[in-house]
Amino acid sequence: MANDNFYAVWRVNMRSQTFQREPVPEKWERLGGRALLARILLDEVPATCEPLGPKNKLIFASGLMVGHMLSSCDRISIGGKSPLTGGVKEANAGGRTGLQLALLGVKALIIDDQPSDPGWWLLHLSAGGVRFEKADQVAGKGVFDTTPLLFERYGEDVAIALIGQGGEMRMLAAGIQNVDKDGIPSRIAARGGMGALMGAKGLKAIVIDGSGGQKPPIADEQAFKQARKDYNKSLLEHPQTLKYRDYGTAAMTMMANAYGVLPTRNFSEGQFEHAEKLSGEHIREAMLARGKSCDPSHACMAGCIIQSSNILTTADGNTTVSAIEYETLGMMGSNLGLGDIDDVARLNYVVNDLGLDTIEIGATLGVAAEAGLMAFGDSARALELIEEIRLGTPQGKVLGNGAGITGKVFGVERVPVAKNQALSAYDPRALKGTGVTYATSPQGGDHTAGLTIRAEIDHLQTDGQVALSRISQFKMAGYDSLGACAFAGFGMSLSPDIIPKLLNARYGWDLGSDILVDLGRENIRLEREFNRQAGFTAADDRLPEWMTREPLPPHNTVFDVPDEELDNTFEW
Amino acid sequence: MANDNFYAVWRVNMRSQTFQREPVPEKWERLGGRALLARILLDEVPATCEPLGPKNKLIFASGLMVGHMLSSCDRISIGGKSPLTGGVKEANAGGRTGLQLALLGVKALIIDDQPSDPGWWLLHLSAGGVRFEKADQVAGKGVFDTTPLLFERYGEDVAIALIGQGGEMRMLAAGIQNVDKDGIPSRIAARGGMGALMGAKGLKAIVIDGSGGQKPPIADEQAFKQARKDYNKSLLEHPQTLKYRDYGTAAMTMMANAYGVLPTRNFSEGQFEHAEKLSGEHIREAMLARGKSCDPSHACMAGCIIQSSNILTTADGNTTVSAIEYETLGMMGSNLGLGDIDDVARLNYVVNDLGLDTIEIGATLGVAAEAGLMAFGDSARALELIEEIRLGTPQGKVLGNGAGITGKVFGVERVPVAKNQALSAYDPRALKGTGVTYATSPQGGDHTAGLTIRAEIDHLQTDGQVALSRISQFKMAGYDSLGACAFAGFGMSLSPDIIPKLLNARYGWDLGSDILVDLGRENIRLEREFNRQAGFTAADDRLPEWMTREPLPPHNTVFDVPDEELDNTFEW
Repeated sequence: MANDNFYAVWRVNMRSQTFQREPVPEKWERLGGRALLARILLDEVPATCEPLGPKNKLIFASGLMVGHMLSSCDRISIGGKSPLTGGVKEANAGGRTGLQLALLGVKALIIDDQPSDPGWWLLHLSAGGVRFEKADQVAGKGVFDTTPLLFERYGEDVAIALIGQGGEMRMLAAGIQNVDKDGIPSRIAARGGMGALMGAKGLKAIVIDGSGGQKPPIADEQAFKQARKDYNKSLLEHPQTLKYRDYGTAAMTMMANAYGVLPTRNFSEGQFEHAEKLSGEHIREAMLARGKSCDPSHACMAGCIIQSSNILTTADGNTTVSAIEYETLGMMGSNLGLGDIDDVARLNYVVNDLGLDTIEIGATLGVAAEAGLMAFGDSARALELIEEIRLGTPQGKVLGNGAGITGKVFGVERVPVAKNQALSAYDPRALKGTGVTYATSPQGGDHTAGLTIRAEIDHLQTDGQVALSRISQFKMAGYDSLGACAFAGFGMSLSPDIIPKLLNARYGWDLGSDILVDLGRENIRLEREFNRQAGFTAADDRLPEWMTREPLPPHNTVFDVPDEELDNTFEW
Repeated sequence: MANDNFYAVWRVNMRSQTFQREPVPEKWERLGGRALLARILLDEVPATCEPLGPKNKLIFASGLMVGHMLSSCDRISIGGKSPLTGGVKEANAGGRTGLQLALLGVKALIIDDQPSDPGWWLLHLSAGGVRFEKADQVAGKGVFDTTPLLFERYGEDVAIALIGQGGEMRMLAAGIQNVDKDGIPSRIAARGGMGALMGAKGLKAIVIDGSGGQKPPIADEQAFKQARKDYNKSLLEHPQTLKYRDYGTAAMTMMANAYGVLPTRNFSEGQFEHAEKLSGEHIREAMLARGKSCDPSHACMAGCIIQSSNILTTADGNTTVSAIEYETLGMMGSNLGLGDIDDVARLNYVVNDLGLDTIEIGATLGVAAEAGLMAFGDSARALELIEEIRLGTPQGKVLGNGAGITGKVFGVERVPVAKNQALSAYDPRALKGTGVTYATSPQGGDHTAGLTIRAEIDHLQTDGQVALSRISQFKMAGYDSLGACAFAGFGMSLSPDIIPKLLNARYGWDLGSDILVDLGRENIRLEREFNRQAGFTAADDRLPEWMTREPLPPHNTVFDVPDEELDNTFEW
């Protein structure tokens, strides 16, 4: 095979401070990204282990397509046993990390065990291998203060994956930030507490210098070139591509509001009276009016032609956020009763700096508001609460550990979580296919596991939602295993041959047109097996009880897909 | 059968404020206490329901022997789906509740649903049925302030089951206090958050006036009289009876310390340098010296001839606690580095007043000390932290929800819980049979589910511990189904015929000498079935990972009973 000698597994032990390069086991070769993570977890991590203990592993795995600056296909998958859900976890992100790991031939970076003594470490990866360096001088700093110091020391072109104070405090809402192509540390592998896991490994940052590496070999250059051309053409032809370039993911706000699924005031309503002020159109207008410190069409990875990211500077010029995403607008905007993009941007910035998941923190603050810690619509108080997280006050530590714990501590029943992970900004009571995804995904509540909002189906009915979620989950798991952004699917979906053509040309394989779904199905099978070993059962494949009882305005529907149907999603 | 017309199920609905008396279903007739609770939960409560939501039920069930003032046999079992463990729960207590419910012919009191509006309620049970009364005037008060007001209103002889502020705030460490024969509200059904469940039902107190009732009928008066005589004789002959009368459960301190299993400074050691000052001998001496405000031999239930309870007044005369138990001395004494009984008594009093479980709170403060919130040995700070629970500060709410949540919030790994419930005051690394009980009991970590310390076995070895725990768990489940105190077993164990003789005489049954174990086995089978439906698997039948890794001084053993053996405890 073309890559036999190119790829290796890089294994690091944080206790012994040792590093070794190992050949890629045969059964890992045809897996990448999310599917490879699941395979490694099953092969190496005891499913019942303490997630923040020495037996868990933090794993970085590039997707199968990573390394060629194919548009939107250089994402990095980061995983381990989740301290938030207790199950399998993959969180992926754009930025530089995936590409530079691929240049070094890293099929998977596996980080074992924990340092025996306190103190913070940094891993420096280059063609020469891995160096362990002390990182105490950047410990306690947010990602925006940390990154420039690391660029200064290691060069402006390195990739950096790092945690903020949230991960240092092992908070379950902590993700791992990755710098984007312009050096901004805001591409977060957000979900499931991977930042806490990195913190538990004593790791503040991983610096990857791919400059001494090389692009992964291509088995059939000519075929690859043609496939890339076809892919780019499809991508540019797809109407959503231009929409996302103009409006970013904020294109979703008005659609979600129209469908009555926009989380509003802790999931108590599905439409927000100020939705328009959180819309992509409104944000684009503001960006264009505010001028050069804003950018409505920004790429997070080199080579991306969708450029769905954006850069927003608040009207006072004090805060710049990249990107302001729909999920953040929904969870920290309407869900908190906030209808001002600058208010949301200020919260977003601090949450990014702490290295926390905006979805989890948005849900958490919604629960906190329900508990009386803040009023809905009070952005100053929301900012105070987030600052408590930074300070690590007892209240801040509660909030930093997510919506589930916050609900338990403050005795709130209306907590929007599945497998203890916050739902994303689509209320499942009026978007039932996505509700099936939230309930049954081995990853816990997560729209990226299988969003169904674009399907032509009545989202209020129960019929057909399980089948819809199933195929959506398989496809998304497939994309996550390729290293492809969900939006790469705009191009790939137009022709079923694009993916096998790219992979066959790249690796010299002979895959058929079902590969995306096949890969996704195998991925989910592996993930469910890990979760089964970890103690998950059908009882975990459920939405919170209150969502089955409390009707959601304006449609006044509850989540009523029967349990038996949920249990058939993957024939549990 | 003798009791066909005597017993009924009393069913209360908190939403509709309705009450009805129902005949006892046939399959419930031969069950009582803990076993009956498990049966009712399986029959009526969806195992996956939200524990603090409307579908859970709070159930009071008297044991099969309750109602006759048989020594130590009038305990009340209180249960529901546990908000702490997420599984089946029975917590039992002495005091008046069991007896007075039996006098009214209540086989089980089942409390359904929740009030639709906020506000606190009180149930008044008498021969006339159930009255719903407003309880807002006692809401927010501790149990010591509440009880006198209720006695004043309902008479001095009523039984009262009530919650403190902990249950009102739905804290997971909250139990349900029951007044003892002298009217002191300190017989707590402590474990598993039953107080939170009562709070979620909007119930501050249940007052039971059995004065218009009658003793349950006895099928064969003569045989019953003889069996009671035999039982009392055995009880008085057993050497432990006198020991417990003199020293109470504090008789255990020096034994636990000698075995190296006395939890010390958050389970980091198994022997405490001040153990002697927490011993039964020392406490008895202090009580005798302090005179009439103390009582080393006090009965919690009418008719008890063991009288293992005690009353301690601190040297300054300001605080009186009844009873000061070994579990409290271990968990809030040595486990917090405190070696002064008056310090422990002061903490104990406040925790009692709040209606919280001293085991769970002791474990929680140990974790809090590990997290740096207090220093081990600082009783004043410990008291401050407990006062924060009363005030419901964010930090107090964390602590009030138990050791598991506290560990998660503050990022502590050394958290002594099983199924999220705090272990009792026996470190399982040097008492491995009890470790098997903690791990595998459907109730979660709990010594009363099957303590093995008196067995003649090397407690440090792994062999034989599973078999030992199994039989111990069956027996304890049997006693819990009879309404018998663990210490009743002193008498019952001397002759295997005592129990069937008592039951056969009472009910006109024809039970054999295996009834205790048979009842216990069936009980555990029912409980495991409920837990299975709730989503529990073998992965839940484990001790925390750190206990398998971190040796416990002075024996420096870890918990190493193999997982496969644990899974054989009941052939899961």
